[in-house]
Amino acid sequence: MINTAEPQKDDDRKWKVLSSEYLYREPWFTVRHECVELPTGSRIPDYYVLEYPDWVCILAITKEQQFVFVRQYRHGSGHTSYELCAGVCEVEDVTPLASAQRELLEETGFGGGQWSEYMLISANPGTHSNITHCFLAVGVEPIVNSHLDSTEDLSVHLLSLDEVRNLLKTGAIEQALHAAPLWKYMAENKCM
Amino acid sequence: MINTAEPQKDDDRKWKVLSSEYLYREPWFTVRHECVELPTGSRIPDYYVLEYPDWVCILAITKEQQFVFVRQYRHGSGHTSYELCAGVCEVEDVTPLASAQRELLEETGFGGGQWSEYMLISANPGTHSNITHCFLAVGVEPIVNSHLDSTEDLSVHLLSLDEVRNLLKTGAIEQALHAAPLWKYMAENKCM
Repeated sequence: MINTAEPQKDDDRKWKVLSSEYLYREPWFTVRHECVELPTGSRIPDYYVLEYPDWVCILAITKEQQFVFVRQYRHGSGHTSYELCAGVCEVEDVTPLASAQRELLEETGFGGGQWSEYMLISANPGTHSNITHCFLAVGVEPIVNSHLDSTEDLSVHLLSLDEVRNLLKTGAIEQALHAAPLWKYMAENKCM
Repeated sequence: MINTAEPQKDDDRKWKVLSSEYLYREPWFTVRHECVELPTGSRIPDYYVLEYPDWVCILAITKEQQFVFVRQYRHGSGHTSYELCAGVCEVEDVTPLASAQRELLEETGFGGGQWSEYMLISANPGTHSNITHCFLAVGVEPIVNSHLDSTEDLSVHLLSLDEVRNLLKTGAIEQALHAAPLWKYMAENKCM
């Protein structure tokens, strides 16, 4: 059954929550267990939603056209890889932009430049309650020495467009939340 | 402190697992709680890793240059949106390619065509143990009627390149695991 891209009555497809309880409400791990009913009448007795604060990531480019990357170990995958600077929207941040500017300064020491919200994406809208705000920051420059949290262990790298293109082509950017804005940049700026 | 994109001694950055226990081992929810030690000596007493089987998604294009999309409600975000056809690598699938071909046929009824692995990405390598295999399938055609699981409620849509470009430009593709291969396609085929 194939339809065209017409507007849909989206609300009709929402699931009905029959029961809901928190399994965990820890600082880095909050999970709801729910029994849900689909519009078709089918029930899913065990559905799990992961609640997180919103996240940010920053595609930052210096005045000299260098891309600001970090390299760090990721314990879920067990890999060390290049990523964009990224972090969490803390309660004290006034806006996601403030979170992003704080994270870039703390993790890399870079700031200034012109900022715009570049895309809004989800790690997985099936399981995650939160959204990631991706910012494009052009013309950033070194402002201070980076100041890492005690639980952060990363190195900062300035990459040329050629190096970023090569990372993308070889599949070295594993994090989907970062691959998406990077490929968007390559598409919009006709870099491939 | 800024370094160039030299090869790193990645293994040096791996975290040491001091303790590890499963909190849940359900079919759709398996979580490890770990106490870890960073190479800096810092400890994170409460780290959570989500274990999933590998996932697949398919950027499928018909012989008539129509893109095969699905539209469904996502309970984590609470939104209904356009997505690529996607699913899970089941134990009985011989390879991720077999999983992807099974999912496309089941969800959309499309098959055939030429298939290639397009990219490997993670929803979040910080928390997820698994990888998503994104396939590009060109020249697919309707083979059978779609056959949904009782817990699936989605509609199939054939979109033109213009319609896909519009979805991307307006931010309608929320799922990062799908936005990344779609933007890659736009970059490589100079569609923007």
